[in-house]
Amino acid sequence: MARLPRSIQNPIDELSRLPGIGPKSAARLVFYLLSKPDSFVEELSASVSNLKKDLKICSECYNYAETDPCNICTSDRVKSKICVVEDPLDVIALERTGFDGVYHVLGGIISPVNGIGPEQIRIEQLVDKLKNTEVETEIILATNPSIEGEATASYICNRVEGLKVKITQLARGLPVGGDLEYADELTLLRSLEGRKDF
Amino acid sequence: MARLPRSIQNPIDELSRLPGIGPKSAARLVFYLLSKPDSFVEELSASVSNLKKDLKICSECYNYAETDPCNICTSDRVKSKICVVEDPLDVIALERTGFDGVYHVLGGIISPVNGIGPEQIRIEQLVDKLKNTEVETEIILATNPSIEGEATASYICNRVEGLKVKITQLARGLPVGGDLEYADELTLLRSLEGRKDF
Repeated sequence: MARLPRSIQNPIDELSRLPGIGPKSAARLVFYLLSKPDSFVEELSASVSNLKKDLKICSECYNYAETDPCNICTSDRVKSKICVVEDPLDVIALERTGFDGVYHVLGGIISPVNGIGPEQIRIEQLVDKLKNTEVETEIILATNPSIEGEATASYICNRVEGLKVKITQLARGLPVGGDLEYADELTLLRSLEGRKDF
Repeated sequence: MARLPRSIQNPIDELSRLPGIGPKSAARLVFYLLSKPDSFVEELSASVSNLKKDLKICSECYNYAETDPCNICTSDRVKSKICVVEDPLDVIALERTGFDGVYHVLGGIISPVNGIGPEQIRIEQLVDKLKNTEVETEIILATNPSIEGEATASYICNRVEGLKVKITQLARGLPVGGDLEYADELTLLRSLEGRKDF
């Protein structure tokens, strides 16, 4: 089998290291780039290269930001409504809903299998934040509806016991646009338990 | 909705322009890169940036190459067996089979809908090549099994009429590992027509 030119094989190898991109998609991407003008390729390369430049971590919500505190924490959002999420991608998803509160990015999930305990993620920082607040605060636990997500939510719930905090969790139920007959039994059970007046 | 930092939004926008990558996958890729060391990101960016550097087009087979002629055309492959393909990605796929001949990359497919006629792709170069050869040559038409691929194959077949050329085409039939019951009727028809002694 003939060897590919190095300048083609290198980006294929590099792109294959990204999640969700196998060697075949990587090759397709590289040959797509080859068919594009130089400026297209340069802009892509530069934007990736500049990714970490000027990027800060907000010292209030621990999200990636251009300024510290970030533009969400400095806005006129409802500061007494804190949505607790695993990572910055979850913030993007929640921002699409028009959520009017602020966030606390844990930076991970308690996962004994992967050797991640409560002290590796930003739970103490959340507790400190809640201790220092004077107004009644609601924390919305928005960890993933997985075993580890639920366990992390439970842990946080225990840690903030005794503080003047209202704890809520995102509803479980049928996904909108989904099909009842394809819903798994646990989702269906949760949607039954959480049923509402019509 | 809060605006993302520019250094995050830019690569998301750039990656979203690539085929098969939507805004959500792009965001996932960018946040994955953020979690990686600087060197990882730099290597990716550099490999993309260097993509077109030192890259040539082989003047014999028209594939991308480091040298001209390319390492396939200069090897001891069977030069009288030319596999005619649409683009360089097809060469990669065929190389995996251990094919022992050489290639001719058309650089596209006849597609009136997209305004691509026979003169826009490298059909004349193929005809010239065949005219100048002294040995009996086989051309294996390996265009995609699509309407446009078949039309391009037919066109080439007509153009080389009268030349001392044996014309073959890749077999159509059931894909290995596939399921007969899911095969479309045209594939099944072709696999019936092309049936072989067992």
